[in-house]
Amino acid sequence: MKSQTKTIVPLILLGSVCVVFGLTLYAQTGSKSNGPVFTADNQLMRPANYREWIWVSSGLGMTYGPREQANSPAEPRFDNVFVTPEAYRAFMKTGKWPNKTMFVLEIRSSQSHGSINKDGHFQGDLVTIEAEVKDEGRFPEKWGFFPFRGSEQTARPAPPATTECQSCHSKNGAVDNTFVQFYPTLLEVARQKGTLRQVPPDSK
Amino acid sequence: MKSQTKTIVPLILLGSVCVVFGLTLYAQTGSKSNGPVFTADNQLMRPANYREWIWVSSGLGMTYGPREQANSPAEPRFDNVFVTPEAYRAFMKTGKWPNKTMFVLEIRSSQSHGSINKDGHFQGDLVTIEAEVKDEGRFPEKWGFFPFRGSEQTARPAPPATTECQSCHSKNGAVDNTFVQFYPTLLEVARQKGTLRQVPPDSK
Repeated sequence: MKSQTKTIVPLILLGSVCVVFGLTLYAQTGSKSNGPVFTADNQLMRPANYREWIWVSSGLGMTYGPREQANSPAEPRFDNVFVTPEAYRAFMKTGKWPNKTMFVLEIRSSQSHGSINKDGHFQGDLVTIEAEVKDEGRFPEKWGFFPFRGSEQTARPAPPATTECQSCHSKNGAVDNTFVQFYPTLLEVARQKGTLRQVPPDSK
Repeated sequence: MKSQTKTIVPLILLGSVCVVFGLTLYAQTGSKSNGPVFTADNQLMRPANYREWIWVSSGLGMTYGPREQANSPAEPRFDNVFVTPEAYRAFMKTGKWPNKTMFVLEIRSSQSHGSINKDGHFQGDLVTIEAEVKDEGRFPEKWGFFPFRGSEQTARPAPPATTECQSCHSKNGAVDNTFVQFYPTLLEVARQKGTLRQVPPDSK
């Protein structure tokens, strides 16, 4: 019995150390799953920590339609794009987006003169966020779009195939419905992996 | 002996599961320490994965001096700012930057017409990166600046106090040498934590 105790105690200690090791790493990295969470009635929960996801790029005043439809006549707006870390890591390996990939498009105002800045633009207040989610079991087109209104904590899906988002992304996305053509580091990965779709340079 | 084996085997299994659990989380999150690494002769190693750090903001064509000194006469450039995740988490709790905080400023070209974009700007090729590191034991001014030339893997520190970076940051940084005034979400945290320095709106 004494010998058995001698063997068991270190094993229990080892087990405990491992649990603590795993949980400490988990807490330090804050790596809870970042995948999409839906309510019972198919609304997407607002992701609280998207600014801690992987940022893929930002643009200023980008305009897909005619110039007159630009998003703000006074000051152009910034669009910042984030993707879930899990999806990013998969993309870096394969050049493809796995199921449950989620993007957030964050729109912010721009400012020009402030503090020591004399020209150009820096980022100001949050205007709105929209999410794009890949869920092949949930959406007939594989991807769903969720515009969040104001600070609401849930968003209803934009109707599939009828929205501008859906039709423009599915027609023009360089990789699987997403605008990788505007994310320079991901564009390079897609080129290397051969997953880039040919996009007509001036398609509408 | 049989009973002892019965007890030990599940414990070994438990231990193994815990090790796998810990290592899998570690691998998934890729959460190696992101702090600055120096060579023996005080050069900073180029951080390989800074695009996976926390992005704090981007600007376009920002100009601190007179307009004529703008960074590109033809097309404005994007500046993207990343900070180490450990430093970011400390800042979110305290509004202050801990020792070993590291920022990367990434400069990219901008493009206007490409794919479906008709106006405004999206990001293009990498131009250069610079790092700013807080190391109170290493730098008399607490912070050091490291401009990386081309794709070189190490950078020498810019001479302290004589560089434009150093003097402008120490004079105008909203929080401890850093331009938190241009990072909207961090600015809000600094306001809440009371760590924001009053910055003269038009100081040069």
